[in-house]
Amino acid sequence: MARSWWGWGNDEDALGGAELAALIDRVGALLPGADLTDHAPPEVADLALPPAKVTPPDSLADLCSSDPTDRAAHTHGKAFRDVVRNLHGDLENVPDVIARPRTEQHVIDLLDWCSAERIPVIPFGGGSSVVGGVEPRFDGPAVTIDLARLDQVVEIDRTSRAARIQAGVFGPHLEDQLRPHDLTLRHFPQSFEFSTLGGWLATRAGGHYATLHTHIDDLVESMRVVTPCGVSESRRLPGSGAGPSPDRLFLGSEGTLGIITEAWMRLQDRPAHRANASLQFADYASAVAATGAVAQSGLHPANCRLLDPAEAFLNAGVTTGGGVLVLGFESADHPVDSALVRAVEICREHGGEVAEGKRNPGADWRSSFLRMPYQRDALARRSMIVETFETACTWDRFEALHAAVTTAATDAIRQIAGVGLVTCRFTHVYPDGPAPYFGVYAPGTWGRTMGQWDEIKTAVSDALAANGGTITHHHAVGRDHRPWYDRQRPDPFAAALTAAKSALDPSGVLNPGVLI
Amino acid sequence: MARSWWGWGNDEDALGGAELAALIDRVGALLPGADLTDHAPPEVADLALPPAKVTPPDSLADLCSSDPTDRAAHTHGKAFRDVVRNLHGDLENVPDVIARPRTEQHVIDLLDWCSAERIPVIPFGGGSSVVGGVEPRFDGPAVTIDLARLDQVVEIDRTSRAARIQAGVFGPHLEDQLRPHDLTLRHFPQSFEFSTLGGWLATRAGGHYATLHTHIDDLVESMRVVTPCGVSESRRLPGSGAGPSPDRLFLGSEGTLGIITEAWMRLQDRPAHRANASLQFADYASAVAATGAVAQSGLHPANCRLLDPAEAFLNAGVTTGGGVLVLGFESADHPVDSALVRAVEICREHGGEVAEGKRNPGADWRSSFLRMPYQRDALARRSMIVETFETACTWDRFEALHAAVTTAATDAIRQIAGVGLVTCRFTHVYPDGPAPYFGVYAPGTWGRTMGQWDEIKTAVSDALAANGGTITHHHAVGRDHRPWYDRQRPDPFAAALTAAKSALDPSGVLNPGVLI
Repeated sequence: MARSWWGWGNDEDALGGAELAALIDRVGALLPGADLTDHAPPEVADLALPPAKVTPPDSLADLCSSDPTDRAAHTHGKAFRDVVRNLHGDLENVPDVIARPRTEQHVIDLLDWCSAERIPVIPFGGGSSVVGGVEPRFDGPAVTIDLARLDQVVEIDRTSRAARIQAGVFGPHLEDQLRPHDLTLRHFPQSFEFSTLGGWLATRAGGHYATLHTHIDDLVESMRVVTPCGVSESRRLPGSGAGPSPDRLFLGSEGTLGIITEAWMRLQDRPAHRANASLQFADYASAVAATGAVAQSGLHPANCRLLDPAEAFLNAGVTTGGGVLVLGFESADHPVDSALVRAVEICREHGGEVAEGKRNPGADWRSSFLRMPYQRDALARRSMIVETFETACTWDRFEALHAAVTTAATDAIRQIAGVGLVTCRFTHVYPDGPAPYFGVYAPGTWGRTMGQWDEIKTAVSDALAANGGTITHHHAVGRDHRPWYDRQRPDPFAAALTAAKSALDPSGVLNPGVLI
Repeated sequence: MARSWWGWGNDEDALGGAELAALIDRVGALLPGADLTDHAPPEVADLALPPAKVTPPDSLADLCSSDPTDRAAHTHGKAFRDVVRNLHGDLENVPDVIARPRTEQHVIDLLDWCSAERIPVIPFGGGSSVVGGVEPRFDGPAVTIDLARLDQVVEIDRTSRAARIQAGVFGPHLEDQLRPHDLTLRHFPQSFEFSTLGGWLATRAGGHYATLHTHIDDLVESMRVVTPCGVSESRRLPGSGAGPSPDRLFLGSEGTLGIITEAWMRLQDRPAHRANASLQFADYASAVAATGAVAQSGLHPANCRLLDPAEAFLNAGVTTGGGVLVLGFESADHPVDSALVRAVEICREHGGEVAEGKRNPGADWRSSFLRMPYQRDALARRSMIVETFETACTWDRFEALHAAVTTAATDAIRQIAGVGLVTCRFTHVYPDGPAPYFGVYAPGTWGRTMGQWDEIKTAVSDALAANGGTITHHHAVGRDHRPWYDRQRPDPFAAALTAAKSALDPSGVLNPGVLI
């Protein structure tokens, strides 16, 4: 398998054959008249990358690469705007050196070199950032530290059901190493195949569980972080009240305070009991109310995903007036049928009806989940604007936020593309509010789709900010979300974080432009 | 009701009559020969407090008091060593001014005054600190800001099941204001009657729930904090991934970074379904294993309290070889009997037997819970050393930690008092470990009991540190835990926290000596 330098995942897994034809047919039917001409990505050799601006010292040379494909593949993350720029060969700022430490000491040595020379450092896990988190969006040299060789489960504590895991391990390889012990992390973001534990921690990734342990944060027992002022290691503890949590400072720090090298993670036994159902609703307000009631019930479904009518149709082929709620319970210990029965009962009280028949929207939806980024790439090559954005808000604000965001998106789409689609699903729900995840699909103009998306993104981000949403529930801040993050973040906290950054990274080399 | 200036709670609720006689009889029987002569606390008039070293400006004068009883009552927290010092009239450092803001602007004005004059400020909620958190343990003037007049539930969002609550509200008054809305915070620390929301937040208090939402941290939606560099207000969000959590910096900051004035808190519906059981075990190792299995089951009991044999005997009158596990489930939404049945089954697999008969150790234990601090005071007056300490560790380390701590405590007690008792219960349990809570009971020597306790405390704290425990799971750090906290906290995190403190509190007036 060869990783795609310009798009999602592996080259071999890109859409082709019948899968591609079916997608093009479907989009063509929805958007008659759209220009779906394919534009192939450039070859790396044709990119004419500038020569590397820095050379590592001899002692670190064998960890470092300035190979053009390596540099190109580490230039952008995997957002729509990243893929589009790659398709156009628009690689303005390319990292000069890709360093692949094999030990924590290598990380320390690399950071020492860059701090001493004041060379900006970009910590890099799987590179699946969709917010400009791994992009050297600045002039001057840049060294990208790719943690992928730190990929081992080092130690397992079966009694406490925890493991010490190196930060560079990718999702599948992590689960492969846990499986012989009948354990699992059960953190399955959409990027699962191409993202790493360290990346999940640095960005407070959202995972498998729709309720309760929604972010990776809650699964952390302790962390080791290499900072320019030393290694920070928190004590392994199931819980503590000793001052502000050290881990919570590094969780979400997005490579600005240090480089996470390993963590003790809380694991799960593998589920042995499951119960699933899908419920259809005649109107969206009732579906939202039902989902809120389930979220407040204390039943803690592992899956609780409300698809609006457009999502339900696109992803599950189901036509409804109010959408589909996909519910799933799981346990390694006990049957969960009674929990499902009660959740269904709650939904029925809000007008929900169990979806019968052969089609299981939940299963269909899951099966297409990991293919979505590949579909996005196929469409990006064909001038389509295909992107998502996400937020969270309290239940009392959801109706207004949903209306404002949908209006902002559709207005922007109408101006830009004339026609298009805005969809919404809940990826996670809490007793006090949902985490809505929006999809945008519109025919763009080849050569202009990035700017077109940026216009839509600005409109919806302003609407999110004005309606009490967060600029990100689990995609992180990176460089793309900075303007709205800066408005959302309390000023005194910004001052505290900036001071903490100065203390830990006095040369200011760590991921400049992100967060601080 | 009049609050005791020297001991726990209200003067009128102090032990007396038959309750006192029974306690003295029981202790006398357990410790024949102990000198249980009563030593009454001094009158405030006899304390000869020094005159106040500072005077507030006229604009703040009506918020401020330098009344001797006020000053005496704000001199110490409510740890054993605090009560003993009070009983001896040993009030070395007394705050000079007790300020009671009625609005957030008052808090800002008071902080402005103290910052400008560089007068140390001690934020004060209920004053129930057991770690020296509210004590001016330094020379020079001190102003204590008592938040008790900020005591209102300001706003309720029934849809999102949350409320905006002022930080100075005490537990019972908070619940009184939520009850008409059929809502509850369900945060019931032992200090519940005499501690405040702001105090819980500032110290990361542990509450009602033995699993899942163990600390107040998880119940916070957003916070307002007055800092010398401005008011920090986080956005109301059910979840977010936008950088490190602002709230998590202030949670556990113990008054060193700012003064919490209000918070949006996640509430619960009032439980309608309950199921409880107590299980007895023949040996402690099996009881611990059973508790671990329940903690890892995903059943999420609200109560899961393992009392060791000594605790079971002292608090529930039950004689067992291995202790008693008190289990309780609750829900506002659905019956919880099947969860209890499964938890009991797990315990039976580990040799547990359901305790039958009239006595319900759980109910007995709960009924004495709120009386314990009053009993402690009665015994402190009679030269007894009566104190608790608590920690958390992973399951794999518990056996060694328990042995080391118990040995350290009993050795210290033997040297100091000849005879005594060390007990252990779990107040909270996690999938990856328990939060053990130890009790120490020994006959001390009048006039020396504080130093005697300090010797025991040093021995057990060293043992905790050496065996992977935290110096505190939910009692906070304050001034008493500093030496061990400083060893436990990663150095780079200490540097970051110190820098954050300097940014937020450039004059360094906020609760000096705590944490930083």
